[in-house]
Amino acid sequence: MGFEKIAGGITAVSGFMAAGIHCGIKKSKKDLALIYSATPATSAGVFTKNLFQAAPVLLTRERIKNKLQAIIINSGNANACTGEKGLEDARAMAAYTARALGIPEESVAVSSTGVIGEYLPMEKIIAGIKDICSCLSAEGGPQAAEAIMTTDTVPKEAAVRGKIKGLPFSVGGIAKGSGMICPNMATMLAFIGTDLQIERELLQKTLKEVVNRTFNMITVDGDTSTNDTVLLLANGQAGITIEAPGPELDTFKEALLAVSAKLAKMIVRDGEGATKVIALKIKGCPDFASGRQMAMAVLNSNLVKTAIFGKDANWGRIVTAMGYSGVDFEPSKVEVNLGHLPVARNGRGLAFSEEEALTVLEQDEIPITINLNLGTTEVEAWGTDLSYEYVRINAEYRS
Amino acid sequence: MGFEKIAGGITAVSGFMAAGIHCGIKKSKKDLALIYSATPATSAGVFTKNLFQAAPVLLTRERIKNKLQAIIINSGNANACTGEKGLEDARAMAAYTARALGIPEESVAVSSTGVIGEYLPMEKIIAGIKDICSCLSAEGGPQAAEAIMTTDTVPKEAAVRGKIKGLPFSVGGIAKGSGMICPNMATMLAFIGTDLQIERELLQKTLKEVVNRTFNMITVDGDTSTNDTVLLLANGQAGITIEAPGPELDTFKEALLAVSAKLAKMIVRDGEGATKVIALKIKGCPDFASGRQMAMAVLNSNLVKTAIFGKDANWGRIVTAMGYSGVDFEPSKVEVNLGHLPVARNGRGLAFSEEEALTVLEQDEIPITINLNLGTTEVEAWGTDLSYEYVRINAEYRS
Repeated sequence: MGFEKIAGGITAVSGFMAAGIHCGIKKSKKDLALIYSATPATSAGVFTKNLFQAAPVLLTRERIKNKLQAIIINSGNANACTGEKGLEDARAMAAYTARALGIPEESVAVSSTGVIGEYLPMEKIIAGIKDICSCLSAEGGPQAAEAIMTTDTVPKEAAVRGKIKGLPFSVGGIAKGSGMICPNMATMLAFIGTDLQIERELLQKTLKEVVNRTFNMITVDGDTSTNDTVLLLANGQAGITIEAPGPELDTFKEALLAVSAKLAKMIVRDGEGATKVIALKIKGCPDFASGRQMAMAVLNSNLVKTAIFGKDANWGRIVTAMGYSGVDFEPSKVEVNLGHLPVARNGRGLAFSEEEALTVLEQDEIPITINLNLGTTEVEAWGTDLSYEYVRINAEYRS
Repeated sequence: MGFEKIAGGITAVSGFMAAGIHCGIKKSKKDLALIYSATPATSAGVFTKNLFQAAPVLLTRERIKNKLQAIIINSGNANACTGEKGLEDARAMAAYTARALGIPEESVAVSSTGVIGEYLPMEKIIAGIKDICSCLSAEGGPQAAEAIMTTDTVPKEAAVRGKIKGLPFSVGGIAKGSGMICPNMATMLAFIGTDLQIERELLQKTLKEVVNRTFNMITVDGDTSTNDTVLLLANGQAGITIEAPGPELDTFKEALLAVSAKLAKMIVRDGEGATKVIALKIKGCPDFASGRQMAMAVLNSNLVKTAIFGKDANWGRIVTAMGYSGVDFEPSKVEVNLGHLPVARNGRGLAFSEEEALTVLEQDEIPITINLNLGTTEVEAWGTDLSYEYVRINAEYRS
């Protein structure tokens, strides 16, 4: 690969500044983040497919058609299911940010995460926006990563540096998400920047492909929120322009994939009450879509999840989930491995050592490999176990 | 309605005998059941849609084309993922039962529930079949209901009596199922009898319709097992024959619906670790299929389930699940009621008293009513909350 991992996240990329502060939506934790690019950036976005779309999602969907220069993000309140007033509030967040930064209103995107069905405390947010604009710095990435957290237990940053035609470039981002709660739901958010200049449609297409292989391949509880958003800003500070597919775009795509995969896995690892990560590989799929569909059925099965929590080599629950996933395959060709241990062949169980299985199940990350022996496509996806702690977090949030 | 609830289950119906014994698959609990009809009965069946189909399902699917006179059922081992030998074992169970009862092999259906991926202990089962045939009695229904249990905590029976053209008839059945475990999975099984004589295609069509409104409208964890089976036997002992649609078939259908709904609700109420039943009604659906799809998305959402467990009036989680259910609807028309309490209108949250919400959430059965305001179809479905106990049962089964 033409790139190396570097420290930090969004502000590891040339021309990006950020800040994170407490403005009073939450009791005491940081709840307002700002990301700013020194120059207007070509933008791409992937948004929730939920029919209920929060107000900031509706606004930002439109705004990414413009060049973007800032993203204002609040946590603690999702501004979802809030009707016309919610949309006005989202527009006001952008307008106040634009005014404070002296940039056009249309170049500001908005994102929110937290409680749904309640109006934003706009007075606190407007005061916060004035404060945060004076806090922007090239070292502010970690503060922004912290300010977008809800039930996350750790901030999530990732960045890589590479070279194109001998010139250095970088890609870096921050993310949040550990399940949907708080008290109604939380959200998966990711904000990624690069200092490359990339033609808008190429940028959008590349982001979509990468999201499909990373953020769309993780699941904590299978719920898709009203606010899920991945934004990508390309500000051109590196002095490299990509206007057509080719090896340079491929290099960028690899870098974006590395950053997105790292952020996605951090989200899973921080999954609500998760004690283990399930790393599922399905080989021999007829195509990507059916491989993904099957992977999600297996990783969202409460019976698979509780078996992994209980360190139980329950391959029967895995094949059962495959069988009801809606994907057409031949049961008699199916192979299942738990780590290195073959547990099923030709759709039938094998005798295996429970002790050997336990050495796999005691790891923090449990590799499960399925082979459908039908095609040549391989998919990878990540999920979590289901623990008492998940139930506690989601049942007792307000008690 | 032209019928009344009566005590008992399958043996409350004229001409049906049953028995349940311990043959040694389980340590000490009953594990072998037999249902017998005095005369060959027209049969109908609805089976799991899982691509992995257990051996007894493959066999019984074929057998229901004949008139059936007996069903032999074991619990403790599902005879699933067992290949050709599993199919031979299922055939042998039918053959030994037929021989002991002096009836044709083709008139015996077979059903199994329990561990998957292991071969049946055929010696114990063959010895058990010899014993059980001599235990058959018209009072044996409760023993059979007990012998088909796996993680069920109570046996499940239901029966009704009605009149057609002044003549009495009855419908009765037994069922099991409380989630999928043991250690790989358990199963939903129901065996229902009637003393009416009904033309085979009408019987099959009626069963399918009724299953769609009852057994297919419940969910504990969304997992569909390899063995799920509903069998219906019509033995004609009541002296009434139904050969065409009309008011007589409608009367039978109502009776079958009452028995199936009662058994289905008993399964939900006995759901693994369930502390509450969620009774979900979706009004104003464009059609039945999309209403059912949405109901299952809401009832299978771990976030909805944990909220109900935690007595939290989290309507946001309900609308989120609706939004990702894949059903097309208009968010701005959506109404949600928790019990009698309106919590959302026009897709937006309402101010409501948390105290009033709590009085609803402290009930054993939580009624949630959604109105999509799109069509005239109404669906009803039942699910459970997600408790610590669910995680314990499914994580620690073998420890």
